Amino acid sequence: MRNVIVTGVARADLGVVDQLAELGVATVHEAIGRAGYLGPGLRPIQDGARTGGTAVTALCWPGDNLMIHAAVEQCQAGDLLVVTATSPSSDGMFGELLATSLAARGVRGLVIEAGVRDVAELRAMGFGVWSAAVSAQGTVKETAGSVNVPVSVGGQIIRPGDAIIADDDGVVCVPRADVGQALAAARARVAKEEQSRKALADGQLGLDLYGLRDKLAARGVEYVTARGDEV
Amino acid sequence: MRNVIVTGVARADLGVVDQLAELGVATVHEAIGRAGYLGPGLRPIQDGARTGGTAVTALCWPGDNLMIHAAVEQCQAGDLLVVTATSPSSDGMFGELLATSLAARGVRGLVIEAGVRDVAELRAMGFGVWSAAVSAQGTVKETAGSVNVPVSVGGQIIRPGDAIIADDDGVVCVPRADVGQALAAARARVAKEEQSRKALADGQLGLDLYGLRDKLAARGVEYVTARGDEV
Amino acid sequence: MRNVIVTGVARADLGVVDQLAELGVATVHEAIGRAGYLGPGLRPIQDGARTGGTAVTALCWPGDNLMIHAAVEQCQAGDLLVVTATSPSSDGMFGELLATSLAARGVRGLVIEAGVRDVAELRAMGFGVWSAAVSAQGTVKETAGSVNVPVSVGGQIIRPGDAIIADDDGVVCVPRADVGQALAAARARVAKEEQSRKALADGQLGLDLYGLRDKLAARGVEYVTARGDEV
Amino acid sequence: MRNVIVTGVARADLGVVDQLAELGVATVHEAIGRAGYLGPGLRPIQDGARTGGTAVTALCWPGDNLMIHAAVEQCQAGDLLVVTATSPSSDGMFGELLATSLAARGVRGLVIEAGVRDVAELRAMGFGVWSAAVSAQGTVKETAGSVNVPVSVGGQIIRPGDAIIADDDGVVCVPRADVGQALAAARARVAKEEQSRKALADGQLGLDLYGLRDKLAARGVEYVTARGDEV
Amino acid sequence: MRNVIVTGVARADLGVVDQLAELGVATVHEAIGRAGYLGPGLRPIQDGARTGGTAVTALCWPGDNLMIHAAVEQCQAGDLLVVTATSPSSDGMFGELLATSLAARGVRGLVIEAGVRDVAELRAMGFGVWSAAVSAQGTVKETAGSVNVPVSVGGQIIRPGDAIIADDDGVVCVPRADVGQALAAARARVAKEEQSRKALADGQLGLDLYGLRDKLAARGVEYVTARGDEV
Amino acid sequence: MRNVIVTGVARADLGVVDQLAELGVATVHEAIGRAGYLGPGLRPIQDGARTGGTAVTALCWPGDNLMIHAAVEQCQAGDLLVVTATSPSSDGMFGELLATSLAARGVRGLVIEAGVRDVAELRAMGFGVWSAAVSAQGTVKETAGSVNVPVSVGGQIIRPGDAIIADDDGVVCVPRADVGQALAAARARVAKEEQSRKALADGQLGLDLYGLRDKLAARGVEYVTARGDEV
Repeated sequence: MRNVIVTGVARADLGVVDQLAELGVATVHEAIGRAGYLGPGLRPIQDGARTGGTAVTALCWPGDNLMIHAAVEQCQAGDLLVVTATSPSSDGMFGELLATSLAARGVRGLVIEAGVRDVAELRAMGFGVWSAAVSAQGTVKETAGSVNVPVSVGGQIIRPGDAIIADDDGVVCVPRADVGQALAAARARVAKEEQSRKALADGQLGLDLYGLRDKLAARGVEYVTARGDEV
Repeated sequence: MRNVIVTGVARADLGVVDQLAELGVATVHEAIGRAGYLGPGLRPIQDGARTGGTAVTALCWPGDNLMIHAAVEQCQAGDLLVVTATSPSSDGMFGELLATSLAARGVRGLVIEAGVRDVAELRAMGFGVWSAAVSAQGTVKETAGSVNVPVSVGGQIIRPGDAIIADDDGVVCVPRADVGQALAAARARVAKEEQSRKALADGQLGLDLYGLRDKLAARGVEYVTARGDEV
Repeated sequence: MRNVIVTGVARADLGVVDQLAELGVATVHEAIGRAGYLGPGLRPIQDGARTGGTAVTALCWPGDNLMIHAAVEQCQAGDLLVVTATSPSSDGMFGELLATSLAARGVRGLVIEAGVRDVAELRAMGFGVWSAAVSAQGTVKETAGSVNVPVSVGGQIIRPGDAIIADDDGVVCVPRADVGQALAAARARVAKEEQSRKALADGQLGLDLYGLRDKLAARGVEYVTARGDEV
Repeated sequence: MRNVIVTGVARADLGVVDQLAELGVATVHEAIGRAGYLGPGLRPIQDGARTGGTAVTALCWPGDNLMIHAAVEQCQAGDLLVVTATSPSSDGMFGELLATSLAARGVRGLVIEAGVRDVAELRAMGFGVWSAAVSAQGTVKETAGSVNVPVSVGGQIIRPGDAIIADDDGVVCVPRADVGQALAAARARVAKEEQSRKALADGQLGLDLYGLRDKLAARGVEYVTARGDEV
Repeated sequence: MRNVIVTGVARADLGVVDQLAELGVATVHEAIGRAGYLGPGLRPIQDGARTGGTAVTALCWPGDNLMIHAAVEQCQAGDLLVVTATSPSSDGMFGELLATSLAARGVRGLVIEAGVRDVAELRAMGFGVWSAAVSAQGTVKETAGSVNVPVSVGGQIIRPGDAIIADDDGVVCVPRADVGQALAAARARVAKEEQSRKALADGQLGLDLYGLRDKLAARGVEYVTARGDEV
Repeated sequence: MRNVIVTGVARADLGVVDQLAELGVATVHEAIGRAGYLGPGLRPIQDGARTGGTAVTALCWPGDNLMIHAAVEQCQAGDLLVVTATSPSSDGMFGELLATSLAARGVRGLVIEAGVRDVAELRAMGFGVWSAAVSAQGTVKETAGSVNVPVSVGGQIIRPGDAIIADDDGVVCVPRADVGQALAAARARVAKEEQSRKALADGQLGLDLYGLRDKLAARGVEYVTARGDEV
């Protein structure tokens, strides 16, 4: 019920986070039990970007980016800033100047459930951004919010210090305590998928590879021949 | 009222489909009477892709891609897989492994009224995808559906074997029986548009080229001069 | 209550408009008091485009582009065509042929609160388009509307002759009478931002640069230390 | 590829349709294999309405209700008019006068994937309407479409003569050939649900009634006790 | 480019406005050339409400209702308050206390392109509200905006002093200068519709009443008989 | 990363929750610092309902209500069931039978970020439901999820045992540990609002009551007189 800025947040192990980032969002999401995905509403502003970092969270008022400025001070190298608003907003709460400030601190990128602007400049800087919108609409700096409290983004709960992985497929959050287990599971999945890829490339069917024919039969799916006269 | 996998579906003539693909979605859509367009909600995952093929359809449960695996077996060279769900879904029902499997069978691409993932890999493969979303959200393989039944996608009815043309403008469906007539009409349209393009480039107005001045007058549209003081 | 085509519309000073375009949408929007932005729903069909021009407006019936043809005749070099519909529509009201016609007249681009098609061709032409959708859905030419009347696009009022600036961040409208004042304010803002950029790149915080620490305190935002056991 | 008005359409047995209507949308939808539901986007304009009828379909241009007038003539007692547009539209294509005309022919109601107006008058008439929107926006009568062709509404395919059931839960379509089988299955479901209702009211759990405990265990769901200190 | 509160605004003739309100939104919208409708997004919070008044406009920052308070002072008996925000917002900017204040001044109701709260209390008061959302989300009073400037709501331009009519079909705006002409046209329409209603109730078809058979034929619509075997 | 059913969850004090419910959603939301509101997307299925309870949470797979059945067993008198899905879904996951089961256990109602069906029966039962949709679309019982884990609904985090208050304005969540403080703050607010209501009813302005005139001046808002000739 108070607005707070939480300092001294424990972060997920950055070495592990970096390895998760190499494996990519879809793999990590599967590895943690098909969990933590922030939904298709957060899109990268440029193709081919991939990054990972530890979450610093900012909860802002709509049309107001005061708390982003407060959050910058809490960011350190290896962090990824995660921003949302108390009400849905597409306003351009973040642009080139804030990115300059974050880049100077070694922050890896931004995940924002709102809008960003100066996208041409952000692309030129190579600053990774995943956002809900691109919007030039400016904001004020008037109303309080919080930094480094748990936030809800895209239907997921993100706690400060969690691992955030982002690539062309979107953004996934791995709880801080789970990154080690996630990495092991993700690596196992990659190994298994490599085998599947070869089998499928050789023409084997998923129906056989994954044993799905029995499933179809058990669920009453019938094979029927097309009638010649169907329209 | 049963879940079925229909085999032995008759396809539109692939030679004709290929020629339709060369003419592009907008032209084909106009040629068949401004019909068959699957709407602006299906977007390509990469710019500049253009393809055509014959439809194999899969009707899935939301959050479940079991029937895509069943559909792969029904696909042959020249097909284009068309996937939808019984309820709206943006989940990532399709990714690199399924694309590998389809590519091994000579399938030309995917049209999916849901999400896809592994988009970086799909782009690298050059596998054409038109989807309603990009999403890493994974799916299960538990619930029955159907393959090669008529489906509704983007407000259009697609029957297995119909021609599907897809490019930067989206996706259009041409009924199997109509592809020949569509090709003739599309070619006529291209020829006519070539003349219009030249006239317009030379400065002629559409008002004159299409005889629209009388239409405007008949509908009571009046020409008035701006007042000097208007704000 | 009548449908009209207004001729002889006064335009904003094109020399000033061109200078505003160089400064970009976000800067101009801020300079005129965080006003005039047409919202995140209008997106460019190609990255990196930036243009400015004077508005010719067309108000169409949904599914009908008759009034775009009427508007072309009212366009002159330096204009930017602004199109909307009396009801929301995503149909492809505009394509390559209309772009050819506009380009022949020296028009700088299109802003349309509806759909466009032939986007591959439009990109190849280098014709700048900001639209609410890409759609191949064709339209008819049957129903009257108006040209060069004030229109509402993206929650903003655009009057014929106003300055329109468009880039990767979207589209902003500057009232015709305000372009001079807007340019002065925009230049002042650019100068100020250049200083801020340097300070921030050197590691100074926005909290200090903009004097926000007192604001936070005045609003009761408290700094608290993370508990070690939080999950 | 032509615009047609199909006459002499065979209808589902109206006696059976009436009995389906008594059982309600959810029951019928389940009885035909969880199929045919037109989605949550179609809402009744008044609470407590329930009806059934045989489909006459009209496919209109957006912003244009010409084909509704053509469809009225094809309607007979016991029919339910089903209207959609070639592009999404929320315009008020239907109002009191059309309802008066339909009521005079014994038509049971309207299902429209667009808007209606005069809703106060429609409610006073007791004319059942399920629509995607309420909108006063008027339409023209200029552009051709079709009557009694298969249409796609809410992701479902509706063929003329199919049974349409509508109540507070929305609208379901039962293929004409399946109404008898649907009625038998729906009655069986009602009988079974009556038993379930009693058991559940007596405090029995669905977990036991439906044998779900084994399912949970088989899927690895674990029971754990809440930690006393969780926040 | 300044934030202003405009005083001394001229209003439409309230006697005429009251007569327009009796005729209803759909009729008035048609009478002024199918114009001025604020779209299906604005819905009444209670069925059966109907009112009319002269517009006082308030333009607010998202999440901020400061300017509504400023607008109240500009309201007089017969007015209807019209509120929008500089960015889309669904927050509950208005509730029982503001309604109490407006009711004390004789204001007829509220049209708001945002949210309202205390809807149970507002219904009990009989205070007419047409809003884009119901939301308890509170707002602050921090950021400047304007009162009695032209605003864009639902794609329409509303100027202070314009006539606003609202009922179950939504909201329509009639420009101040046009109310007399609108009333005459609306009355003529009502008289004509009364005749049409009788004819249609007697079984005459719109096809004949409006002379649409020729239109269908001219547009190539063909009558065809259903094939007996169609599925 | 596991699917769990958490038992023995501590609940907020039900006596306090009941008193919060009497004060209503908007008041409680304000009292806890304009926090905890689940957004305008969750609407009651009947007007005038108001309830409060302690949260039991269920996290389901889209199109699957298995975990609702598991959650019922965890519910006790005074609880309110809160359901969401791992991906957005509007399917009718809940209906009359589940309500019968919950009512038998003394559960006060349902908050569901998905669809419900049998709404006529639910209204007749007087079972309070706040949902994102009404939909007859049925679901399966195949895929695991969790019960009584923290969930994200409408952008808010809900933990099992939290207080949930719901009325015509929507739904608010108060953290379990904060209900006592919330009640005190809410009562203070009610008392203050009662005074404001009287002052406003007597014609006092919010501008004076809340001291807003200085705020407007400080922000540069200017009073200007309308020009007589403005259009």
